[in-house]
Formats: sequence, C-alpha cells, structure tokens
Amino acid sequence: MTTIDNPPATVSDAELEAGRRAYELDRKHVFHSWSAQATLKPMTVTKAEGSYVWDGEGTRLLDFSSQMVNTNIGHQHPKVVAAIVEQAQKLCTIAPSHVNDARSEAARLIAERTPGELNKVFFTNGGAEAVENAVRMARLHTGRRKVLSRYRSYHGGTDTAVNITGDPRRWANDYGDAGVVHFFGPFLYRSRFYAQTQEQECERALAHLNEVIAMEGPGQIAAIILESVPGTAGIMVPPPGYLQGVREICDRYGIMYIADEVMAGFGRTGKWFAVEHSDGVIPDLITFAKGVNSGYVPLGGVAISPHIAATFDNRPYPGGLTYSGHPLATAAAVATINTMAEEGIVENAARLGTEIMGPGLAEIAQRHPSVGEVRGVGMFWAIELVKDQATREPLAPYGGTSDAMNAVIGECKKLGLLPFANYNRIHAVPPLNITDEQAREGLAILDQALEVADRSL
Amino acid sequence: MTTIDNPPATVSDAELEAGRRAYELDRKHVFHSWSAQATLKPMTVTKAEGSYVWDGEGTRLLDFSSQMVNTNIGHQHPKVVAAIVEQAQKLCTIAPSHVNDARSEAARLIAERTPGELNKVFFTNGGAEAVENAVRMARLHTGRRKVLSRYRSYHGGTDTAVNITGDPRRWANDYGDAGVVHFFGPFLYRSRFYAQTQEQECERALAHLNEVIAMEGPGQIAAIILESVPGTAGIMVPPPGYLQGVREICDRYGIMYIADEVMAGFGRTGKWFAVEHSDGVIPDLITFAKGVNSGYVPLGGVAISPHIAATFDNRPYPGGLTYSGHPLATAAAVATINTMAEEGIVENAARLGTEIMGPGLAEIAQRHPSVGEVRGVGMFWAIELVKDQATREPLAPYGGTSDAMNAVIGECKKLGLLPFANYNRIHAVPPLNITDEQAREGLAILDQALEVADRSL
Repeated sequence: MTTIDNPPATVSDAELEAGRRAYELDRKHVFHSWSAQATLKPMTVTKAEGSYVWDGEGTRLLDFSSQMVNTNIGHQHPKVVAAIVEQAQKLCTIAPSHVNDARSEAARLIAERTPGELNKVFFTNGGAEAVENAVRMARLHTGRRKVLSRYRSYHGGTDTAVNITGDPRRWANDYGDAGVVHFFGPFLYRSRFYAQTQEQECERALAHLNEVIAMEGPGQIAAIILESVPGTAGIMVPPPGYLQGVREICDRYGIMYIADEVMAGFGRTGKWFAVEHSDGVIPDLITFAKGVNSGYVPLGGVAISPHIAATFDNRPYPGGLTYSGHPLATAAAVATINTMAEEGIVENAARLGTEIMGPGLAEIAQRHPSVGEVRGVGMFWAIELVKDQATREPLAPYGGTSDAMNAVIGECKKLGLLPFANYNRIHAVPPLNITDEQAREGLAILDQALEVADRSL
Repeated sequence: MTTIDNPPATVSDAELEAGRRAYELDRKHVFHSWSAQATLKPMTVTKAEGSYVWDGEGTRLLDFSSQMVNTNIGHQHPKVVAAIVEQAQKLCTIAPSHVNDARSEAARLIAERTPGELNKVFFTNGGAEAVENAVRMARLHTGRRKVLSRYRSYHGGTDTAVNITGDPRRWANDYGDAGVVHFFGPFLYRSRFYAQTQEQECERALAHLNEVIAMEGPGQIAAIILESVPGTAGIMVPPPGYLQGVREICDRYGIMYIADEVMAGFGRTGKWFAVEHSDGVIPDLITFAKGVNSGYVPLGGVAISPHIAATFDNRPYPGGLTYSGHPLATAAAVATINTMAEEGIVENAARLGTEIMGPGLAEIAQRHPSVGEVRGVGMFWAIELVKDQATREPLAPYGGTSDAMNAVIGECKKLGLLPFANYNRIHAVPPLNITDEQAREGLAILDQALEVADRSL
C-alpha cells in the first residue's frame, strides 16, 4: 500500500501567509454549510497528505474524520492525483449525451462490484442528487409516491433528500408534503422496542416496519431507503437478519429497496458495499458518492437493477444534469477503484477494524465513565458519550452541542487529532489505508481526550 | 486571446480504439440523462480542443453547442488545465467546514463581479443545487413558501428545481405539491398577450405577473425566479424594462428576486452576468454554474445579498453538501475568471454577437422559409424553425422532435458542425473565444444545413 508514515511538519511561510489571507476572505465572502455564519470560527487547512492535515498555524493533525468521511484512500494519493492530472490534460468535460471513455470504464468498474446484477450506473455530482434520482426511478417504476426512511439517518441536502433524512437538519426544510414517512430502525443502545438483545431488536424493528407499512398502505409505497450502516446519524450497524428482513418485506409488497451507500460504500466497512455484510441481500438501487473517488472530484451516482433500468428502455428517464458522468470525476473514480483493488485497501479496512480499531475502542469504552457505547465495523466507528452510563443521557442533546462535547473536540485537536463529531458522538473514521501505528496513535489521543469528558460528569 | 485556429484532425488509432471500447461499455453500463435508454445512439467523443471536438470516427466537428452551453472558454484552455493540474498536486479536496485558499479566492472573484452587494457565495456542485439552495434561502428569509417561475424555463434536475422548471421535463416529476406557480414571461414571437411590439409585450407581461401575484396572494410568495435570459427554453432576451418591472414588483411585495444565471452568466451574453443588460436591476440572489469554470470541474453556487445572508448570521443555515467549495472546482473557477478577464473573453463575446453572429443570423433568417425567427445576444442565439412563417407552427412540437428537425441536426453534423438543439430550435452557442473565422464557418454550415429544413416544408 502507498502510505505516508510520518511526514515532517513542513508548512512554508508562504503557505501560512496564504492561509491567513484565505481566512480573511472566507469570513468576508464564503457562506458555509449547516452553520450560523456570524459565530463561525473555521479551521484553516494549509496542506494535507496521507492521513494528515495541517492547520492555519502549521500544526499537523492526524485526520480521524476523513473530512466528511470521504477520503477513504487518504489525502493526495499519488496514483489518483496522477490520473486526475492525466485526464485534465486530455479532456476535462464533455456533455452527458456523448460517450466518454473515463465514464464508461468507471461504470464498468462499479457495476463489477455491485451485488447482484445492478449493471447500469447513472452518474451525479454527489450523494444528494444520487438519492433524488434513485427515489425518482423507484417512484416512476412503481407508479407509487411514498418513500419510507428511518429516523436517525442522513440522505443529503437537496429538498427531497433532506426530507428523506431522519435528522434535525430536515426540520427547517419540511413542509409536510415530500411524500416521506419515517420509521424507527434497529438501535439496541437506545432501543424504541424495549429490546434486550440484538436478536430481539431485529425482530421487533422488522415488526414495527411491517406495522408502519400496513398503516401507510403497502400499495402506496414506492421505496424503502436505508443507509446500509447509518453514518452521520450514529454508525448503527444493523443486527444480523435485519436487512434480509427488509428485503423480504419489499419483495412481499413490490416496494423498491434503495441501499444508500454514500458514506458506508467503497470500503468504509471493510467491504466494497456495506450491504454485502448481509448475505443474499440485493437492493434494487444503490446510491453512492464520497469513497467512489474519495471526493477528489465531485461525483456520485445510482447503480440500477435490470428491472428498473428496463422501465426507461423506451420511456425517457425524466432526470439529468450537465455534469453526469463528468470525465475528470469518473477518471478519478477509475484510478481510485483500481488503486483500492491493487493495494488491498478494502481488505485492510476490514483487518484494521478487527485487529486495531475494534479492540482499541472496546478498551477505551471500559476505561471511561463518559463512554456509553462504542460500535462499528471496518473503519467506521462511533463513540457515544453520555452523562451517565445508567440513564444513557447524551453528553449533548439530540440536534445540539454542549460545553463538554466542545471541550472533548478541542482537546483532540490540541493533542493532534482531527475527529468527526456529531451531537454527543465522536466518530473514528480515518482513511482506510492509515498505518497501524497511526491508527494506534489516534486511539491513544482519543483515550486521553476522553478524560476531559469524564471530568465533566 | 488563447485560441486554436485550426488544429489538424489528428486522432490516433489508439484513441479511436479506446472510443470503440468506450461505446460498447457505455451501452452496457451507462444510464443516460433525459433519455429512453434502448433507442439511444450516442456520439463518441475521442478528443476536444478549443472550439472543436472529434467523434468516434475521428471526424472533427466545430462545437457550436459548448456542450451543455458550459465550455464558455472552449475545450482544454491551457491556463485552466494548468491550474487544475497545480491544484490537484497541491490539494484535491477538503471538508466545507475548513477554510481553503482556492475557495476563498473564487468567492472573492465572483463577489467582485456580481452587481450590487451580493458579496457572499454559497458553493454547490452545479446549477440544480444552486437553485434548490437559493429557493431555500428565500423561503426561510421571508417565511413564505410559494415560488413563482415562468413557463418556458429550465432550472435544474433535482425535485424542487425541476418543479420550478417550466418545461415538459417537469411533468413526470410533478406531484402538485412543490409550492410552485408558473406564469407567462415575455416572448413576443409567440406572445400570450396579443402584443405587436416589444414595448407592449413588456407592459402586458408585467401586468400578467401582477395579476398572478394578486390571485396567488402577495404575502404567500417567497420568490420569483427567472433566468435573466431563458436558455434551453429558447433564448428569449427580455424586452427593455421587463426585469426592472419584476424588480419593482418584488420590492413592492417583499418578494425575493432570484436571477438564475446558470446558463446566461459568466460572459455568455457579453456581460459577466446577463442581468447587467437591465440597468439598475440588482437581484437578491444569483444562481450560477457552467461558465463559472466552463464545467471543467463540477461547480455551481449562489451569490447572496447582505439582507438574506444576515438571516443566517445567528440562525444555522439548514443546507449543505460534502463538496461545497471544493478546492479543485474553485481553483478551476479562479483560473477561468482570471483568464476571461486577462484575455477579454467577455468583451469578445459582446463583439462577436454584434459584428458576426447577429448580422450573420439575420441574413440566414431572410434566406430560409423554415426560419421563423432568430434572436439572441452576445454568443447566445436561437434559430426558431417553423413549418410556416405565417402560422408560426413549430417544425417539431413542444416537448418533442420531428423527422425534419432530426434531418437538420444530422446535416449539421455531416457538414462538420455540432449544434445545440431543443424541440424546434437550433441554438448557436459556441465558445466565447471562438475565432471570427470559425464563427463565420459555423454560420455558413448552418446556412447550408437549413436548406434541408426548407425542403421539408
């Protein structure tokens, strides 16, 4: 594997000066995602390489966030950078209606990896558009409108995608008419089903889903969309049998099963697609983005099963975008997928999960009274922080933050680690090709930073 | 200006072979935008440079489409390619929450060019997401839901954007609950207002808009969104005074005015923004994409006025995306904008429109009985083809195609020209830095190809 063990902290004075100017201009001219603009104090990134980023003071941070959980192959992987350079010099862009070799090859490589016969790929610029188009395909294929999705989920920022999302970010965008119904998914640690075991949680979550469908009208439901492992919402790995149960329910009622693999796909869980952890489950549609090319160039898409594709054989598909199958973006995907295969990066994620992340986080959970639960798979882990292990009261409220959480995040950065944080959780989601030593170093920093949370109790 | 006058038709055997394989894989694995998949026979592009593309047989075509009207600086402009290469080698991607120098500088350059004080920029991956976010901002700023847009318009492919669109592509996506009301805009050639002059059309179109607002409830309307010059829908340059009238109506009722400049912006009309043709008109929000970096890397965004930005100073903005302000995409924008400024490309578009395209197309209109009207500005021109100049019956029905239209398009390609076609129209929308000679050559081919349309009458 191409890994960068321990690059020296070399940020030049010119880079630091550029960073200072970037900060000034940012505060004047850049409007930021999901934020109150006036109170924002964003971190400047002056440089990134492998598993590291450097901030505005030139301080090196170990990237346990993979940014938005997208740089699965780390920053600036030389093989992907080389492919982008080569494609840029050859052909940056072409209309989606024309045939392009980078797009064709990316579609082939993705189709080769999807489970079952999801052999056609519709490319978008990112995950939200992938979800929008998957839902559109399901609605037109079935002639039905309703979409079911779970609470505690994230599916994207455009109107339809954010209304499918089961997260407070939906609230301000919800006018009650998106045709979406939310249900509770399995989440044993905060079970809505009074379950004591994963088996019970699975059985009861499926019974709940069945009941919601009965109440909503099976013949009204176009699709059930589920992140194969919900990501930002908390990395709740589904209990064994749950996704098989969802597949059976969908088959029973002619409902399309959309597996959202935007965050969980492309190696994050130690498989190419997270749904592969559930034997025999073949979704009707798979949405992807992020890991497909590590976000080096914006790209997302939908992998489509033959029965849905056939609906649009002779009837025009009413969706599209200027940059569908963009040559530069798909060339980056070709290089990323080939590099991940050549360097065994997906297998490495599985190994790191089993050998280092899983055991290391289990030890952390034992040591800290502020840790309610750690859970995950591959390189996809959540640490759930609580005020009290008995009541499981979160260290920050759902949808909010708290001084204690901010203190933990601050301490991580002080100790040289960039974490991914959401409400009362810290996610440990480093690049899949991080070295064993770096992974252990990150866990050691988390261990130390969590003392701040312990002290807040 | 960096122009490529007449590059030799040099497609290598290896490139042709790659094109053949790309075609095979495309038909197997690529699901195309806005199309019935089985009947599709897409053109392969093996190479592109300046104002030319080469097809699967190695034949050179003069690109009068700018692809999806996005390659405003032509294909593979060396300065933009160099900037992409440099940024790729430095930093491909970073989360939107962190400060990045390419993003900051792109925001500054865009803010510098927008009319009025639209000094904050929210970056997206493309035009549809730009429209989604502009509408969201307007709705949350006003606390109102309804959006007004015109028939004969295009605003993007995601659910909200396509429902705002006034084009048949909306139909299959319209469940009647997007909170959108369509009205008729000014279009003298097919006047809905029985107008005889542009002045009359303007006055009556504004009276119509006022009446629609009165009927829909002024206090219910969050925004009016208008392409400053409607693009794919037909390049209807608004009559003098129309956009000023819209601005006044918006001011009267506290309605936000969103100028959609996705296709018309960044030089296409001979100004940085097409709304600048209407003296004194400052929109509340401007959406852009395409020309901002010629689509070399997917990018779009919203330029935001201070009063709307202030709404989100202390209240989190409920929207975002993983690739907002993507370093590679914004670095391409910085290079594109700087190159356009250095090389006088916007001024060149204005000059070409006045000196070559306008007069050349006027002559064509006089010569061909199949041409009902030519209209446009800068490098943004439509040729409206009709079965009969008296009845103005289109050569292909609204939303459809016809043998006669297909024959004209085929003849253009046979003669070495790649046109942009929509229903009964051929659009002449070449790169803004095409040479005078190439522009004349393109017009000569159109002139010849239109004989096929004449013969069909």
